[in-house]
Amino acid sequence: MNEEHKKNDCLFYNDPESLLLESGQIINGHDIAYKTYGTLNSKKDNAILICHALSGDQYVASLHPITKKEGWWERMVGKDKPIDTSRFFVICINVLGGCMGSTGPASINPETNKVFAVNFPIITIADMVKAQVRLIDNLGIEELVSVIGGSMGGMQALEWAASYPERLKSAIPIATSSRHTAQNIAFHELGRQAIMADINWNAGNYKDQNTNPSKGLSIARMTAHVTYLSEASLTKKFGRKLQDKTDLGFGFDADFQIESYLRHQGHTFVDRFDANSYLYITRAMDYFDLEKTHKKSLTEIYANSNLKFLIVSFTGDWLYPTSENLMIVRALSAGGVDVSFVEIESDKGHDAFLLDEPEFDVCLDGFLKSL
Amino acid sequence: MNEEHKKNDCLFYNDPESLLLESGQIINGHDIAYKTYGTLNSKKDNAILICHALSGDQYVASLHPITKKEGWWERMVGKDKPIDTSRFFVICINVLGGCMGSTGPASINPETNKVFAVNFPIITIADMVKAQVRLIDNLGIEELVSVIGGSMGGMQALEWAASYPERLKSAIPIATSSRHTAQNIAFHELGRQAIMADINWNAGNYKDQNTNPSKGLSIARMTAHVTYLSEASLTKKFGRKLQDKTDLGFGFDADFQIESYLRHQGHTFVDRFDANSYLYITRAMDYFDLEKTHKKSLTEIYANSNLKFLIVSFTGDWLYPTSENLMIVRALSAGGVDVSFVEIESDKGHDAFLLDEPEFDVCLDGFLKSL
Repeated sequence: MNEEHKKNDCLFYNDPESLLLESGQIINGHDIAYKTYGTLNSKKDNAILICHALSGDQYVASLHPITKKEGWWERMVGKDKPIDTSRFFVICINVLGGCMGSTGPASINPETNKVFAVNFPIITIADMVKAQVRLIDNLGIEELVSVIGGSMGGMQALEWAASYPERLKSAIPIATSSRHTAQNIAFHELGRQAIMADINWNAGNYKDQNTNPSKGLSIARMTAHVTYLSEASLTKKFGRKLQDKTDLGFGFDADFQIESYLRHQGHTFVDRFDANSYLYITRAMDYFDLEKTHKKSLTEIYANSNLKFLIVSFTGDWLYPTSENLMIVRALSAGGVDVSFVEIESDKGHDAFLLDEPEFDVCLDGFLKSL
Repeated sequence: MNEEHKKNDCLFYNDPESLLLESGQIINGHDIAYKTYGTLNSKKDNAILICHALSGDQYVASLHPITKKEGWWERMVGKDKPIDTSRFFVICINVLGGCMGSTGPASINPETNKVFAVNFPIITIADMVKAQVRLIDNLGIEELVSVIGGSMGGMQALEWAASYPERLKSAIPIATSSRHTAQNIAFHELGRQAIMADINWNAGNYKDQNTNPSKGLSIARMTAHVTYLSEASLTKKFGRKLQDKTDLGFGFDADFQIESYLRHQGHTFVDRFDANSYLYITRAMDYFDLEKTHKKSLTEIYANSNLKFLIVSFTGDWLYPTSENLMIVRALSAGGVDVSFVEIESDKGHDAFLLDEPEFDVCLDGFLKSL
């Protein structure tokens, strides 16, 4: 998939240096695909890095080359928007292990001239961030105004602040967690099992056979999608409403709108996402555990950091609920770190950070203006 | 599967009459497999019906013929237990559409001499109950002391009380709902999609090919299982503990205990459950909507009923949370019905009704003694 996307409207950084991963394995040279918005000033001190979530990519504020849909955070990023591109130079990087141009399991392994597939090394959130730092170095940026991200993007923001505090003025982890819980892991494991159960997965070697584990990936996406929405939002949006019929069909077709909606979410996802990438990225999230990686308590990791933090959670988010976000806030406070915390009232579930929540916009806008 | 189970330690009722289903379709004669405990007295007025949940069966208080494990509610049913078999004659019936002896999609269609598979008609909770009433009639029982069930068993209890109030003294719906919500339907749809995506499902005709959509059914079970446990119980039981290793494996094997546990739950389920039955029974649950079926409000359905109700919910149950159970309680109260409601403090999730919750035992015991 990577080769195709080189044609797409984004930038590429071919990092020639070898990258030592948390696993101990090494990637000998890799590509990083990214998008930028706004202009880097002459002092190179107006850059903001936005980190994307599991199914996101670098197209944060521009048309997606495959779906032709608008960027996933257009409402937040642009001229006169909270992340104001007339002030900031905004960078958004497809994560290492991704499938929108950065090196990942769908890339060609230069040593074998074959697709990596499951021979791609397991990567972690810290590895993704390490690769991002290399690009930021290459762009000549010493200090970022902020690293911002929701969900897995928030994990990256936390890891940036933990490992590279001198490179940041602030961090804005949103709707995230300092480590994946058993329930978080469980939902990801369902998705992985669905992909690996697909006869077309073929132990990861589906590209060789010009096929795709679409059914498995689709089910993985459907499963994740249910966790992104709150019970309240599902009830409000769908309830028990029927799909294009006046009564139950007494069969296994999609009778209910919620079924039809989920099937659609699954079907469209497979056109833009690589199944092996999904395995690798969910694994990186499951492995995320800041205290384990840094061999310190959360408080010790950030103690006496000069960063300013803004942490945001949403009341309807049951995937990374307020309690998980508050755990980080408490650790930061205990370490004497400058941290603001906002819990936004929303019934939209985990996806709230991507959706229309004006109170959230105001917070982000105010925080960035204060920097 | 049905034929094999005829050898098993349970009773069978061959209902010769045709059964008109809610869909308008007809089953021309069917088998009902059931177990009884205790002794029916001469007045035949000491019978209690226990209704099982989605993955349950008639082996409520006796060894399961396949798993060789003890009955699923041994702790509740037996001599001197809350459902006291020295006082009550306890009946537990494998639901219509099930796979432990009652007629279902795995049964032979007498009209074609082939397995029904997906030619089995779609059944509803009301249809399951209708078949149960026929057996109760055949046993010569005019009035049951109670109909008791958790989860889908609770739906059956609610339907009994709605359609056959004159046949019951009381009903005990536990951890249940008067209709499936969009989120409930969503999780079931994931399971169904996983089964139907399995190459071995073969449009339902796997028995002809002597194969089984085990991977799909296993994922369906894993998905359901995650919804049966609370986040708190998963954290307490598993957290991020590793399975038989001292560090992360940096691969896709089961590193975490929660992964290993879920895989085990999936694998063992396929030995005792038919995939098509899983499709039909989840569909019956999704279709469950008392107000729609009875074309009345919940309050009107039960208004002025002489039944006594005990409704029980569990604080940690997010599948059928207290709010869903309270909706029923409020409707009953508004209709002037004698209803007791207890919310049990538990962090065990939806499965709490099957687990060691002494306060729950006390409530059930007290309620039954008061009858």
